Amino acid sequence: MSLIVQKYGGSSLADAAKIKNVARRIAKTRKAGNKVVVVVSAMGDTTDDLIKLAFQVNKDPEERELDVLLSTGELVASTLLAMALHGMGQHSISLSGAQAGIRTDDAYSMARITDIDPSRILKELNKGNIVIVAGFQGINKDSDTTTLGRGGSDTTAVALAAALKAERCERYTDVDGIYSTDPRLLPKARKLRDISYDEMLEMVSYGSKAVQPRAVELAEVYNIPFLVASSFNSNPGTLIHKEVSMEIVNKVRSIAYDLDVAKITILGVPDKPGVAAKIFVPLAKAGVSVDTIVQNASVKNITDLTFTVAKSDLEAAMKVVQPIAKAVGARQCIGDPQWGKVSIVGSGMQNTPGYAARMFDTLSKAGVNIQLITTSEIRITCIIERVKVKEAVTVLHQAFELDKKN
Amino acid sequence: MSLIVQKYGGSSLADAAKIKNVARRIAKTRKAGNKVVVVVSAMGDTTDDLIKLAFQVNKDPEERELDVLLSTGELVASTLLAMALHGMGQHSISLSGAQAGIRTDDAYSMARITDIDPSRILKELNKGNIVIVAGFQGINKDSDTTTLGRGGSDTTAVALAAALKAERCERYTDVDGIYSTDPRLLPKARKLRDISYDEMLEMVSYGSKAVQPRAVELAEVYNIPFLVASSFNSNPGTLIHKEVSMEIVNKVRSIAYDLDVAKITILGVPDKPGVAAKIFVPLAKAGVSVDTIVQNASVKNITDLTFTVAKSDLEAAMKVVQPIAKAVGARQCIGDPQWGKVSIVGSGMQNTPGYAARMFDTLSKAGVNIQLITTSEIRITCIIERVKVKEAVTVLHQAFELDKKN
Repeated sequence: MSLIVQKYGGSSLADAAKIKNVARRIAKTRKAGNKVVVVVSAMGDTTDDLIKLAFQVNKDPEERELDVLLSTGELVASTLLAMALHGMGQHSISLSGAQAGIRTDDAYSMARITDIDPSRILKELNKGNIVIVAGFQGINKDSDTTTLGRGGSDTTAVALAAALKAERCERYTDVDGIYSTDPRLLPKARKLRDISYDEMLEMVSYGSKAVQPRAVELAEVYNIPFLVASSFNSNPGTLIHKEVSMEIVNKVRSIAYDLDVAKITILGVPDKPGVAAKIFVPLAKAGVSVDTIVQNASVKNITDLTFTVAKSDLEAAMKVVQPIAKAVGARQCIGDPQWGKVSIVGSGMQNTPGYAARMFDTLSKAGVNIQLITTSEIRITCIIERVKVKEAVTVLHQAFELDKKN
Repeated sequence: MSLIVQKYGGSSLADAAKIKNVARRIAKTRKAGNKVVVVVSAMGDTTDDLIKLAFQVNKDPEERELDVLLSTGELVASTLLAMALHGMGQHSISLSGAQAGIRTDDAYSMARITDIDPSRILKELNKGNIVIVAGFQGINKDSDTTTLGRGGSDTTAVALAAALKAERCERYTDVDGIYSTDPRLLPKARKLRDISYDEMLEMVSYGSKAVQPRAVELAEVYNIPFLVASSFNSNPGTLIHKEVSMEIVNKVRSIAYDLDVAKITILGVPDKPGVAAKIFVPLAKAGVSVDTIVQNASVKNITDLTFTVAKSDLEAAMKVVQPIAKAVGARQCIGDPQWGKVSIVGSGMQNTPGYAARMFDTLSKAGVNIQLITTSEIRITCIIERVKVKEAVTVLHQAFELDKKN
């Protein structure tokens, strides 16, 4: 008898009919002879509604209280799902994060799981129950409720799968898998049968919003196969796991993109030790996440420094950078919000030359000018004009034969 | 420094503005130099909305799950109130029933408090916190959430007041006190300054819906003064306590009434041992609460038996009683839904004759026919036609000088 952990997202549980639909899916997994632990998010917009309510009461709500407040959303969903399963004759019980043994540190609103005591879950599984766990929450050493922040319920699911030594973790939402690129941008994007943890993480870092990186990282550490599929149909979804099929002829798996890129260029920076730190330490302190950094070769000890930030962070970044640029004697500091990013991602690239060349050549032929380039072992990224991103994704998707079935 | 337990009802917490209003009241009590523990109900219609949701998912939801579901309503209210207090610069913390140490038996949906471990509350009070406790809930020995049923939050408040040896328990809702009779029926009804536990319990049993009897009974057992007042104004409210003012000239304190009375009469019952049990045991099993029972003196070993039930229970009661009446050889069984009840209540009555006479005389002069009479030491009740109830309350209120200030 295998143990499977399933996680259902808020959109899959948005109303009574959808909850019953999810219950039917769970019952099917149970009837197929598996032990099942289910992790739920809050129904639909519940979390947003609760946050709104909190801000009506206090413009700066204390995080401890906010965590207890938000945790109720998952409690509600967990009990309703257990009730729906009872209605189908399935033995089931809901457990809060605390009851499920999920212990965290004290970082309210962004707590990290420190350890899991799975004894209550195991007891309920042994009684024949399907166990429904309220996601996104745990308790700290004072027995106070904490929440896990963005992607919290996915993290709960993977962490439970690890603690319970589950066969795999299945995540069901309104996203039915990982695509060769965003199907909203390029309708002929194909769903991938499987993908490696590292490829997935690169895709997330470079624009894909299909999963939260935190859960994927955790799945990688504990080597938990992580299925991403839809709760609204029976399509196979995408399995994120350690080893993708040994021979994938086409080694580029996916084209990631990002439309939210701003570029800051500091011209005429004296090339002295410590200048970079003077710029990037204050940016980090101001909460601005800096992405690509490029520094040109120095001519007469004067260099140009370019880096990118999220477009939404441009204003804040410029406020920090402009006085510093002046202070270090730079000639000019220019912020430009009109940029985008396109990346090719694939584990196979690291052992095979020629990918970068083919990427640049393809973009060039399509008239897409490359502004900046960054690479990792399994990814090549070009910063290009935002208006060219769609064209770039389209031509790269074709050039790397992602239109074909892998 | 006194310790005061305050309880705020759902209508007092129905939206952000009302929650802030309640926070201001609590802050005032705190600033007056008191330690404050607050018990909250769920906001407005939250509990009803959650029940609706449960029934959409399962027409017969399991009580364990329903209890967890409903308990979230009070958690939400407790955190929002703590946030509102923070916004006013008050140190405050919310606690769940479990964190507040409220332990119950296993009777989901109608659990009884078995004991209270007040250590966490005391710790938070000593830190200078106003402690906000989610009412209506506790945990059983398996650490599963239970709810306390009707009047649960009032019960939480009184039980905490007892466990913490609080000076008193104050209940704030949209009801601003206990009246000499229902002001909706008789606008000149007066609010009572104070009333004894027993008087209050008689009033509740005989029609008043101002409080739940459970909390009053508990307050009586632990001798906790229990203030009933409004959260929407600063009027003094009514104190329910052990000893009302020693000399209250007018010994009738209140006129209770009930419009929801049905009468069942079984004519020609053989007067044999065991007949009453044959009728009333099955009624109790069917969940029908029988109120007044009157049996006429037996003539030739044949008697008539009359009793009252809630009008809404009449149909169910008749279904139980009719076959039994036939089986025991009664002549006829008649159900009649057109009745009401009027009662005079006052501790002073027990030592002073003449109240019954004055009541019957007053009703007679007003042309109100008395169908049945029952009494306790501090109450006299007449069953009368429903259409006469308002008239009866009015003339009795005047006859016992309740129009005047006591």
